[in-house]
Amino acid sequence: MAQDIPKEQWAQVIEKTGGPVEYKKIPVQQPGPDEVLVNIKYSGVCHTDLHAVNGDWPLPTKLPLVGGHEGAGVVVAKGNLVEDIQIGDHAGVKWINGTCLQCDFCQQSDEPLCPKALLSGYTVDGSFQQYCIAKAAHVARIPKDVPLDAVSPVLCAGITVYKGLKESGARPGQTVAIVGAGGGLGSLAQQYAKAMGLQIIAIDTGDEKKKMCEELGSRAFVDFAKSQNVVKDVQAATEDGLGPHAVILVAVAEKPFQQAAEYVRPRGTVICIGLPAGAKLSAPVFESVIKMVCIRGSYVGNRKDTAEALEFFRRGVIKSPFKVIGLSELQKVYDMMHQGQIAGRYVVDTSK
Amino acid sequence: MAQDIPKEQWAQVIEKTGGPVEYKKIPVQQPGPDEVLVNIKYSGVCHTDLHAVNGDWPLPTKLPLVGGHEGAGVVVAKGNLVEDIQIGDHAGVKWINGTCLQCDFCQQSDEPLCPKALLSGYTVDGSFQQYCIAKAAHVARIPKDVPLDAVSPVLCAGITVYKGLKESGARPGQTVAIVGAGGGLGSLAQQYAKAMGLQIIAIDTGDEKKKMCEELGSRAFVDFAKSQNVVKDVQAATEDGLGPHAVILVAVAEKPFQQAAEYVRPRGTVICIGLPAGAKLSAPVFESVIKMVCIRGSYVGNRKDTAEALEFFRRGVIKSPFKVIGLSELQKVYDMMHQGQIAGRYVVDTSK
Amino acid sequence: MAQDIPKEQWAQVIEKTGGPVEYKKIPVQQPGPDEVLVNIKYSGVCHTDLHAVNGDWPLPTKLPLVGGHEGAGVVVAKGNLVEDIQIGDHAGVKWINGTCLQCDFCQQSDEPLCPKALLSGYTVDGSFQQYCIAKAAHVARIPKDVPLDAVSPVLCAGITVYKGLKESGARPGQTVAIVGAGGGLGSLAQQYAKAMGLQIIAIDTGDEKKKMCEELGSRAFVDFAKSQNVVKDVQAATEDGLGPHAVILVAVAEKPFQQAAEYVRPRGTVICIGLPAGAKLSAPVFESVIKMVCIRGSYVGNRKDTAEALEFFRRGVIKSPFKVIGLSELQKVYDMMHQGQIAGRYVVDTSK
Amino acid sequence: MAQDIPKEQWAQVIEKTGGPVEYKKIPVQQPGPDEVLVNIKYSGVCHTDLHAVNGDWPLPTKLPLVGGHEGAGVVVAKGNLVEDIQIGDHAGVKWINGTCLQCDFCQQSDEPLCPKALLSGYTVDGSFQQYCIAKAAHVARIPKDVPLDAVSPVLCAGITVYKGLKESGARPGQTVAIVGAGGGLGSLAQQYAKAMGLQIIAIDTGDEKKKMCEELGSRAFVDFAKSQNVVKDVQAATEDGLGPHAVILVAVAEKPFQQAAEYVRPRGTVICIGLPAGAKLSAPVFESVIKMVCIRGSYVGNRKDTAEALEFFRRGVIKSPFKVIGLSELQKVYDMMHQGQIAGRYVVDTSK
Repeated sequence: MAQDIPKEQWAQVIEKTGGPVEYKKIPVQQPGPDEVLVNIKYSGVCHTDLHAVNGDWPLPTKLPLVGGHEGAGVVVAKGNLVEDIQIGDHAGVKWINGTCLQCDFCQQSDEPLCPKALLSGYTVDGSFQQYCIAKAAHVARIPKDVPLDAVSPVLCAGITVYKGLKESGARPGQTVAIVGAGGGLGSLAQQYAKAMGLQIIAIDTGDEKKKMCEELGSRAFVDFAKSQNVVKDVQAATEDGLGPHAVILVAVAEKPFQQAAEYVRPRGTVICIGLPAGAKLSAPVFESVIKMVCIRGSYVGNRKDTAEALEFFRRGVIKSPFKVIGLSELQKVYDMMHQGQIAGRYVVDTSK
Repeated sequence: MAQDIPKEQWAQVIEKTGGPVEYKKIPVQQPGPDEVLVNIKYSGVCHTDLHAVNGDWPLPTKLPLVGGHEGAGVVVAKGNLVEDIQIGDHAGVKWINGTCLQCDFCQQSDEPLCPKALLSGYTVDGSFQQYCIAKAAHVARIPKDVPLDAVSPVLCAGITVYKGLKESGARPGQTVAIVGAGGGLGSLAQQYAKAMGLQIIAIDTGDEKKKMCEELGSRAFVDFAKSQNVVKDVQAATEDGLGPHAVILVAVAEKPFQQAAEYVRPRGTVICIGLPAGAKLSAPVFESVIKMVCIRGSYVGNRKDTAEALEFFRRGVIKSPFKVIGLSELQKVYDMMHQGQIAGRYVVDTSK
Repeated sequence: MAQDIPKEQWAQVIEKTGGPVEYKKIPVQQPGPDEVLVNIKYSGVCHTDLHAVNGDWPLPTKLPLVGGHEGAGVVVAKGNLVEDIQIGDHAGVKWINGTCLQCDFCQQSDEPLCPKALLSGYTVDGSFQQYCIAKAAHVARIPKDVPLDAVSPVLCAGITVYKGLKESGARPGQTVAIVGAGGGLGSLAQQYAKAMGLQIIAIDTGDEKKKMCEELGSRAFVDFAKSQNVVKDVQAATEDGLGPHAVILVAVAEKPFQQAAEYVRPRGTVICIGLPAGAKLSAPVFESVIKMVCIRGSYVGNRKDTAEALEFFRRGVIKSPFKVIGLSELQKVYDMMHQGQIAGRYVVDTSK
Repeated sequence: MAQDIPKEQWAQVIEKTGGPVEYKKIPVQQPGPDEVLVNIKYSGVCHTDLHAVNGDWPLPTKLPLVGGHEGAGVVVAKGNLVEDIQIGDHAGVKWINGTCLQCDFCQQSDEPLCPKALLSGYTVDGSFQQYCIAKAAHVARIPKDVPLDAVSPVLCAGITVYKGLKESGARPGQTVAIVGAGGGLGSLAQQYAKAMGLQIIAIDTGDEKKKMCEELGSRAFVDFAKSQNVVKDVQAATEDGLGPHAVILVAVAEKPFQQAAEYVRPRGTVICIGLPAGAKLSAPVFESVIKMVCIRGSYVGNRKDTAEALEFFRRGVIKSPFKVIGLSELQKVYDMMHQGQIAGRYVVDTSK
């Protein structure tokens, strides 16, 4: 088997903060005793990857760095201690590359909160290369009947919105508002919400997004740009006018964070997922107390969330539109992203 | 029985917003079919009563108004439909005077969120009179072995902090920081927390308060005025340095609302109880998401919380220091409150 | 309005335990101050009604008794205190006719556990009459766009299985086994489970039931009569072979109660709903402890469950096949029930 | 450091099922890359150890076998991958010696349910030897200010009852009945319950046990041998006569399993911990459904439960009476256990 793994491989490397990424050959690494080496076939491109290039988050990256954390591929080598995944299995390299599995947070299944968490494409090399290392306990198990290109965006975007929906505590039959419903995260959030038996109020702007949201099964669409009063319109879109049980914020703007606490139902939950740089949560104390509102940050999923989110995808109830482009052209994707020109998710093919 | 109830009674009446209160004779009312008439013996005086006089909350009061919502007394009359409480029983008139018992919120035991909630001493006449009306389903059941003067502050302050501690989700053995620990709400919060098996970090200022908190059983005291770095000092006061599992905010200032999200443990909960007029919750989105912090408003308790909070008191594990003063001298208490000169709780004796 | 209400009406009356029911004219009652009078249009017939006739449950009935607890109709009169429901509104008379709304259980939204609960068609007269009394706080609110004949079986059967599914704690995406899936309760349970995002393993016998279950969307069917090993077959029907996360027992036999604890997933929950007379739960202590199995009894829904179950129905995702028969022919239905000849639910039309 | 570890050590070995144990010298093992070698100082003796000797549970043991799973000692060697625990740290070898940390159950913090769990003193060698191997991720972290002899029984008995109390869902202020309260598990359960803010009804027999339970702080004692009606007496011992919110079964007899479902409060939980060989859970379906009773098996604690149970002990609120005896005399303890002559816990000193 080992002879099939080359010594060198193509990768996109960030040499210094601010970029650009450089497409070049670098050595293939060997997995440690508790690691696997994954031959990445496809990898989704996420806004976080752009933050890693730009270094505008309050958390430094490794340098030089291979970005990417939505990598789907095949296990080609594994360490001595690895028993639960085999060479030839399909696996996903996700944002959480590895954790200690022993700290207080890992013990309570909150691996994303582990102080020693390794972050793919951020504090360790990620999936914008042909052969990527990850901790065996953390790679996502991808069933073989799932296409590797289509599943790659699920590995971060899908898991993250699914986690947010779980954290919201909304129960089947209840209503959830999704802010930024027409974007990449938003359209995934709508599909997971529907599969979870939730009613959806989509909040976004423009007729194209409206049409898309309606096709995805949302019960109402509030156009925040056209609405005279977003708070009233969102509340009016619920059966009893009292507002949605939960709000999922995937928009990358600050204002919606402040409106959500107003239109959410008393006892409702506002889930913050999107990370607009420098933004503040803000809500009036009086109304938040009187309404018993809960505002909760939701980060990425743990391993269990990952398995569950993938199982929804495997069952065919989640469709994530994507465009494939060669790994060599990654910089183009960043340029489009930077200019806000992206519609849907780009997935890089590491063979090109 | 009926002949024992006078036609007139002494009361403290707010004739116009801004006050002052006027001590005078007013008629005694008759209870409706689902109501009881309670002969108030003692009533605690709460900051909310001052807000009712001043009209500085975004919710209008009834006028003229009899304030008060911590009234403890004896049931002297009841309506035809009332079966579960008898004449002669001891009962408490609390902030939630009555609710519809039928709406979505009442159906899920969140009576304080009922849109039709009647608020004692705010939207209906309260306990600063000798005979007060309340809905039978809502008056607190006070066991006869409980002294009516001592229990009166528990009817609002005690229930409210107990509710906040429940809402925090902190489990026995975990650590809770109480901000404003040395005040009236704070000292009750410490006692309930201890009775619930929680470890306490008291946050307040001054050596007198420090001594009091230590006597109440807090494991650490952080003096926010002397501390060089409140966030670090609070985290250092936990066994593993990762911060408290929950924070209970009973302080009436804005700054602590913003610090709490920083020192709370990842996955921890910040409970907002205090209502500083016009204050804002504010927290950075990035850190709140990465740490999966939960910020939650907690209003007053429901009927079940009330019964539970009273049972802790009956068992003798909650002591609330108080001073008794005649009902006729209520304005003096307001004056002291207005000037921030109150230490401990004042309780009015309606017979004087 | 009042003149529209007749003095007398048709009803089916049980004069003595053991039956038969007698179709005759009886007086129309007046609602008390917190009650409504509902002009019943349709009422479903439930196995419990047969138990009421036979008196074979360890709980005595009122005598003479008008049975029925799935009554759907129109409010025609109401008491003075009733504010939240209006004359002309559509309402449902369900098993829980009224409760005290004040005891420990009512306070925590467990109205079905109220020691003073009035049971329609059992301890108070029920819906097998044209005009039925119920407590206003407890009648189900039926939206006007919902047909009264089709909704009537939902008022007991639908709510009960929905409650059981909620109590199971199964989350969207997880798997639930339904024992007795092909019966009336079972087919409703499958539809609610699907609407709640659950995966279904249907357990029952016969090709006709198999076909029906597959059409309702179950992922697998285990024929308990043909299976060599029900435990293994149920576990094999789950994705990872570890068994379903929950089991819903709606069968009226004892054996399945004992098998369920064996095939349920470790940490899984077995929900008991069906009430085979005299049956025992039984499970080996050792395996139950080692697997951390939970066995839980689920009774009827509370008011919130009722509203939620009806909202699923209103949205059109629940279909309950039923046959309409005149109220005058109720004894025929009992006879068929007694002989086990019923397929689907019978609904009586009170006008015939 | 390594030269301090001898090649041979004293151990108690079970050569064949049925015993006896043989005290002899055996080789010291080397830890694997993810393991530690713990120099056991003290080890508690548990009923499970006797089951391991007798082979009367439906789960085969390793043979030859070194028993013991309450071992407290000092880490003297560790594998290459071990980072979170250091040589010289105090550590506990508990029933769960290691698990895969990757399966569905490990992912949700239910390590005790891992199908690959290694069981100390049962499927792998345990703590009745001077040097014992365990997975680094699973050894209990024992703070250095905790005495190793006193803590050893906490490592199984303490964690197990603490877990049971957590699983019961009983909240501070609520009442829990402990069946077998006067035994070793029972007295620990009472102390944990008290530290968790619970009210205790102790159920056992005899005046000596009654006195002990009262000293431990139980609010009532029901002597099951003297009581005319255990069900009524237990219910009468609760404030409102409706029964305890939870029942913890640590008795090793079958009858109490069947009574508990009768006296537990509606909506209450019966926790099964004790493992009387061959016993059956049994409860009437009708009453269990009508009361919505929950019967739940609780196995041993996970790593988080372990850390929490130890922290209560470190704070000094748990006292577990024990007698120290040399490891060489282990057979004597088994003999006493077999004859039911044990009062309190025996702890073996591995140096004797």
